[in-house]
Amino acid sequence: MSTSDGGTYAPAPLPAPVVEPGEFVVAAVGLDHGHIYGMCEGLLGAGATLRWVHDGDPEKVARFRDRFPDVRVARSEAEVLDDPEVHLVAGAAVTSERCALGVRVMEAGKDYFTDKAPLTTLEQLATARAAVARTGRKYAVYYSERVHVETAVFAGQLIEQGAIGRVLQVVGFGPHRLNAPSRPAWFFEKEKYGGILTDIGSHNVDQVLHYTGATDAEVVSSQIANYAHPEHPELDDFGDANLVTSTGATGYFRCDWFTPDGLQTWGDGRTFILGTDGFIEQRKYMNLGTDDGPAHLFLANGDQETHFRLHGEVGYPYFGQLVLDCLRRTEEAMTQEHAFTAIEVALRAQATARDLTR
Amino acid sequence: MSTSDGGTYAPAPLPAPVVEPGEFVVAAVGLDHGHIYGMCEGLLGAGATLRWVHDGDPEKVARFRDRFPDVRVARSEAEVLDDPEVHLVAGAAVTSERCALGVRVMEAGKDYFTDKAPLTTLEQLATARAAVARTGRKYAVYYSERVHVETAVFAGQLIEQGAIGRVLQVVGFGPHRLNAPSRPAWFFEKEKYGGILTDIGSHNVDQVLHYTGATDAEVVSSQIANYAHPEHPELDDFGDANLVTSTGATGYFRCDWFTPDGLQTWGDGRTFILGTDGFIEQRKYMNLGTDDGPAHLFLANGDQETHFRLHGEVGYPYFGQLVLDCLRRTEEAMTQEHAFTAIEVALRAQATARDLTR
Repeated sequence: MSTSDGGTYAPAPLPAPVVEPGEFVVAAVGLDHGHIYGMCEGLLGAGATLRWVHDGDPEKVARFRDRFPDVRVARSEAEVLDDPEVHLVAGAAVTSERCALGVRVMEAGKDYFTDKAPLTTLEQLATARAAVARTGRKYAVYYSERVHVETAVFAGQLIEQGAIGRVLQVVGFGPHRLNAPSRPAWFFEKEKYGGILTDIGSHNVDQVLHYTGATDAEVVSSQIANYAHPEHPELDDFGDANLVTSTGATGYFRCDWFTPDGLQTWGDGRTFILGTDGFIEQRKYMNLGTDDGPAHLFLANGDQETHFRLHGEVGYPYFGQLVLDCLRRTEEAMTQEHAFTAIEVALRAQATARDLTR
Repeated sequence: MSTSDGGTYAPAPLPAPVVEPGEFVVAAVGLDHGHIYGMCEGLLGAGATLRWVHDGDPEKVARFRDRFPDVRVARSEAEVLDDPEVHLVAGAAVTSERCALGVRVMEAGKDYFTDKAPLTTLEQLATARAAVARTGRKYAVYYSERVHVETAVFAGQLIEQGAIGRVLQVVGFGPHRLNAPSRPAWFFEKEKYGGILTDIGSHNVDQVLHYTGATDAEVVSSQIANYAHPEHPELDDFGDANLVTSTGATGYFRCDWFTPDGLQTWGDGRTFILGTDGFIEQRKYMNLGTDDGPAHLFLANGDQETHFRLHGEVGYPYFGQLVLDCLRRTEEAMTQEHAFTAIEVALRAQATARDLTR
């Protein structure tokens, strides 16, 4: 019956740095979202050298230097963009400003790596696509709930190895703790954060497309709501969407800001992947009702049930692939088209969503 | 952090029989689906007396008598319907014949208790509604994945006690093992089984309506497919649907016939209920990757995470309520309107479903 020996499947070897110090130089510009820390740590883990930081807010810069003491503080964005040794600029600006920053970065001849959501409107998407075509630079996106989560990485490896056959469906839950007092004002302004299906939903669209191997998806229904936060009228505290992918699979996801105070972490993120020959459940950040820590993946297929404990076992190959993609002009980490299509589908879901409460 | 002491919540006392032997007499007519066993056991547990069985197939009758040796074999359906002491007829006929049987039962002055799906077309639904109105009898439905599952019963009790606040969403997974050689021919004929969203989906619609407290739901999208069973072209091996309820909540469910051989039971049935103040996860029949048996419910709210092990702790109050409803002409177990609305929504989901593969 159920076993825990891992069966015939195991994670690929932990990724190692792919470059020597100084071979791939990066900068951080735009510290509005804390994801910039994860982005930089991922790049540093791949061997990148973090040379510059820039943000208009000296407090954010000071906090960033606490974590990355070797970084230089640029006096202006131009100082970063004018440095010919910088290969890539990582940014976690206010969401609605991420596209404009990216265009400036790419026009300066550098690759861009932005926090998700990478932009907030279809107009910005057209601008970003045109800038990529014009400059030949990359507009890479930190869809962290897949590329920076060990269960998510291993799920992709399992699917590649045929562990569950053809993927028929991906269902994702993206619950988050609101913690409203800690959030900046822009977080509650729809023009700036883009709506919940754009913001959190783009993570989930990325996963639906990736695990099904699809190049696009149709939004067949989507809903948003503000059920319980009248003090923040532009906040979507709930969103969901049902997709049909170009491979004929379905996707469904729900995002929300209702993680209760009693939960051990910020959200019980899950991804369920149904295949013709088995299924995978990811319990990404916790195993509900236990003290077992993060990174649990369950595989059921023709042979057995297997509970994989993956914390520290898989790593994040995305970052090394991204570094090499930038140096070699390849697309191993993620194709540009995938990065743009994920946000495009999310934007369509947001734009066509039925608002259940307003 | 996480605890397992049950917090301030505990199941209501186990239900006891509600009638003395002979006070409530039932019969079983139509043994085409094995659910008839669970239906009769539930009724017997509530104190009912099983007097008659009838089916055209002597083998099915013999097998039924192995389990219920005191039952009398009726020579005809009429012999059952003519017995003035029979209060209720339970049936698990071929799905497309359940309505016709029900009308005959109700015309004979008896209440009817049918396996789900209770019928297969909107025309049959109109017929059943008219027969209920005309006869004043009940057309009760065995939505077993809620009324005969201890986690599902306790989830309802928790919601009533306010454990998760207002219910915003219900997501259900209804995976099943196909085990094709064990299935009768009618199981693969769409005209007879009604399609996956009618058949299995009606369970899930019942749960969405019940847990959200809704009187109706709109089907905003639905899909069916036959991904991997070309030898059974009329089988839907997959179905999903996104609902918006009359309370402004959302529902989503997926049903499928892809339970892999390595799974410890016939399906990893789950229900996730999101509220404003917490959430509930039901792992109904197993706790994936463990040997912990069935009936696990997880509650996370403002206080803590709690893992309830409910096997044998909750029981099935539905059956006693149904018996008393029949005797007193009340609607404590389930309203007639709810029973009909659940299948109506499921039929709409089936009728409007996009077929992804055919």
